[in-house]
Amino acid sequence: MTRKIFLHEKDIPKKWYNIAADLPTSLLPPLTPDGKPIGPEMLAPVFPMNLIEQEVSTERWIDIPEEILDILYQWRPAPLRRAERLERHLGTPAKIYYKDESTSPPGSHKPNTAIAQAWYNKQFGIERLTTETGAGQWGSALAFACKLVGLECKVFMVRISFDQKPFRKLMMQVWGANCVASPSPETNAGRAILEKMPDTPGSLGIAISEAIEQAVTDSSGKTRYSLGSVLNHVLLHQSIIGLEAKAQLKSVGEKLPDVVIGCAGGGSNFAGLAFPFTADKINGADMEIIPVEPTACPTLTRGPFAYDFGDTACTTPLLAMYTLGHAFVPPPIHAGGLRYHGMAPLVCQCVVEGLHTPRAIDQVECYEAALTWAKTEGFICAPETSHAIACAIQEANKAKEEGKEKVILFNYSGHGLMDLTGYDNFISGKLVPYALPDEELQKTEECLKDYPRAEKRKTGKW
Amino acid sequence: MTRKIFLHEKDIPKKWYNIAADLPTSLLPPLTPDGKPIGPEMLAPVFPMNLIEQEVSTERWIDIPEEILDILYQWRPAPLRRAERLERHLGTPAKIYYKDESTSPPGSHKPNTAIAQAWYNKQFGIERLTTETGAGQWGSALAFACKLVGLECKVFMVRISFDQKPFRKLMMQVWGANCVASPSPETNAGRAILEKMPDTPGSLGIAISEAIEQAVTDSSGKTRYSLGSVLNHVLLHQSIIGLEAKAQLKSVGEKLPDVVIGCAGGGSNFAGLAFPFTADKINGADMEIIPVEPTACPTLTRGPFAYDFGDTACTTPLLAMYTLGHAFVPPPIHAGGLRYHGMAPLVCQCVVEGLHTPRAIDQVECYEAALTWAKTEGFICAPETSHAIACAIQEANKAKEEGKEKVILFNYSGHGLMDLTGYDNFISGKLVPYALPDEELQKTEECLKDYPRAEKRKTGKW
Repeated sequence: MTRKIFLHEKDIPKKWYNIAADLPTSLLPPLTPDGKPIGPEMLAPVFPMNLIEQEVSTERWIDIPEEILDILYQWRPAPLRRAERLERHLGTPAKIYYKDESTSPPGSHKPNTAIAQAWYNKQFGIERLTTETGAGQWGSALAFACKLVGLECKVFMVRISFDQKPFRKLMMQVWGANCVASPSPETNAGRAILEKMPDTPGSLGIAISEAIEQAVTDSSGKTRYSLGSVLNHVLLHQSIIGLEAKAQLKSVGEKLPDVVIGCAGGGSNFAGLAFPFTADKINGADMEIIPVEPTACPTLTRGPFAYDFGDTACTTPLLAMYTLGHAFVPPPIHAGGLRYHGMAPLVCQCVVEGLHTPRAIDQVECYEAALTWAKTEGFICAPETSHAIACAIQEANKAKEEGKEKVILFNYSGHGLMDLTGYDNFISGKLVPYALPDEELQKTEECLKDYPRAEKRKTGKW
Repeated sequence: MTRKIFLHEKDIPKKWYNIAADLPTSLLPPLTPDGKPIGPEMLAPVFPMNLIEQEVSTERWIDIPEEILDILYQWRPAPLRRAERLERHLGTPAKIYYKDESTSPPGSHKPNTAIAQAWYNKQFGIERLTTETGAGQWGSALAFACKLVGLECKVFMVRISFDQKPFRKLMMQVWGANCVASPSPETNAGRAILEKMPDTPGSLGIAISEAIEQAVTDSSGKTRYSLGSVLNHVLLHQSIIGLEAKAQLKSVGEKLPDVVIGCAGGGSNFAGLAFPFTADKINGADMEIIPVEPTACPTLTRGPFAYDFGDTACTTPLLAMYTLGHAFVPPPIHAGGLRYHGMAPLVCQCVVEGLHTPRAIDQVECYEAALTWAKTEGFICAPETSHAIACAIQEANKAKEEGKEKVILFNYSGHGLMDLTGYDNFISGKLVPYALPDEELQKTEECLKDYPRAEKRKTGKW
């Protein structure tokens, strides 16, 4: 037995997998606020056309350009690992494998799409990318990508994180990005907020508005905006995770896993691992595929399937997805990431079809799982990743009860070295169990009432 | 070509290499402050006898117990990597390989010895280890090791770091260690200092005194002290780095490298990589082996070879080594690690023999190298590691001038994700070149004048 399963560089996937080609029911189209379908050209001020083409593509396989692979090789193929010491601790007959996405320079799966997006923008003649970041994972991934590809990078970082997480900001600066606190005096959106609320801690919604405004108002036409999750092309770029994992499992003689798990905020790390396996499930394989979300932000398990904006400020198209409403703000009691109100439409359609079976887990159970992980496997996981670990432990314990030698695979989306404050709160007893109260879902209904409900189209096969 | 060279777990070295067996001239013995040789039994209150046996052993190969390997497998064998993108950037004909020790859970080479020390202490019936930490690398490695081996861990962290680096402290707490600011009210040494200077920022010297005091005064006899560098048994445990690197170079068809490089503070990461290659140099191989130190703390390049204490508080035996004097404090202008006044006696003896050729590099050149690294290889290195990178770049540029396809190997001792403040100071222009002024070396002489000068014994073969 080996605990670290490597794939040779020459065996890295040369194409991304696009689940849109295999979905039993196609995605509902994005809409304008007044309910008209959005055409690709309407996205052109925000994204370069080559990425918009990927966004709407239904090709099954899309070539990964050699120049992108040249950068991905710095940490890819990423190791597949066997959590043997955790298995022993649990006394489970299950085999627990995890795909280790923490080995990238910024420490998460995010660079898989950041590198691709930066490269396609550069190909299109773009010189500068703007984005927003909350906790800083995405901002640092895009800063890294822009430095290696050769673009300027501007990151609007939610002020409270900017002040409380100076190390993330420093990471971005090491990679040459210009990181400013949002709201900033640099945009109309930012100035308007600052005038009314000079001491605001900021929000992701405001930061998105600032980043998009700077992209679309650059009169040179050389600036675009970049998003780190949710969109189809982002999930496409992340499919390399699952493609590698499949090859690695095969290399140690495993067939398809019985259970595939990933934490789900916007859905990109989960989908990256899960979609290549979902293709097998569509083709008849028996497999449980679980996106895990916090009970504090139960988008897939308790939200309605509806048309909603991707951002709090209502500047994006309306997307058909499970959502808690664009005005949803998880309570500060929730320490981890995974605070996004919506979810990638491709993941949502898989849930509608019954291909994916979402699960919500409380943050206290997640941090307990993270500490079990730290004392058995030795590594300190990201707060988001702890949700996947907690679910893997649930499944390993279930396998023990059932006496079944199941194969469990989960995505280790990132390390927690830059996010230790949540651990501190947990260890010092400040975190308590928290599930979203029912009355909060009334607010979701209120928030969504002016927009069309999305139709749940399903074949009923799963 | 491949950029990541893995060694299969079954090929991990099963024995540590002890250079004491091959040194052309044996080490000078440690002495008491009044000049008498120290016997192993005098160290027994501080270290367990099984580690003391390793400290004085001249056996060439020492078996690595299976239980230690079981933990090392979590990240070992560590990858050997080719810095191909840096080579391209430099336009050098040299091949630059680096051994990546940043992949351990605490992010550096330190756990190689922390795990071994914790395990041997536990075998000896010890239940609790004490140690000191400055920046936090060693403290977090020992916390990690104690958690996985099953020991209690108490870390005295220099107060200024305790206050300024809360994340390192949190890391230790995730692994269950009790980390207190030093000076603390828990020891006589700490209380005495606090009474005189309640607002002191602390020092490594004080922290060592506190850690040793707690170990030797525990009346149960179940507590010992642990040191992260300098000592022979620490360097022994680190030899796995060089042994793996040798096997990995061989696996890609390389013979011995032309240049071997490591940054040197106490000497353990440098020696870990260099000693297995030094064995070949002793046997006639032509190789340059370079310990790199900062010009702000030029122990090997400008310090005298003398008997000196290992700690500031003069509680350790006198060791024969290059030293700037136990009272030496590098100016705060120096941001990186590598601030130790002395150097591992085994490394010093190799320097005396001419087997190792030390080099001092200014921190500004080192941070420039670190930024070049971040934009080419993509990773953010530890400030200590930047010294090895700067030296590798010097050597690669030299190979370019000479038109020689040299093989350069260096030790990537750790990542810099927890140490970004130095980068901030550099990027914002606060760091300036600094070489220790000659008059400071007068203080060294003053500090050492009451202790015996060490005799430079050499064969003259190198």
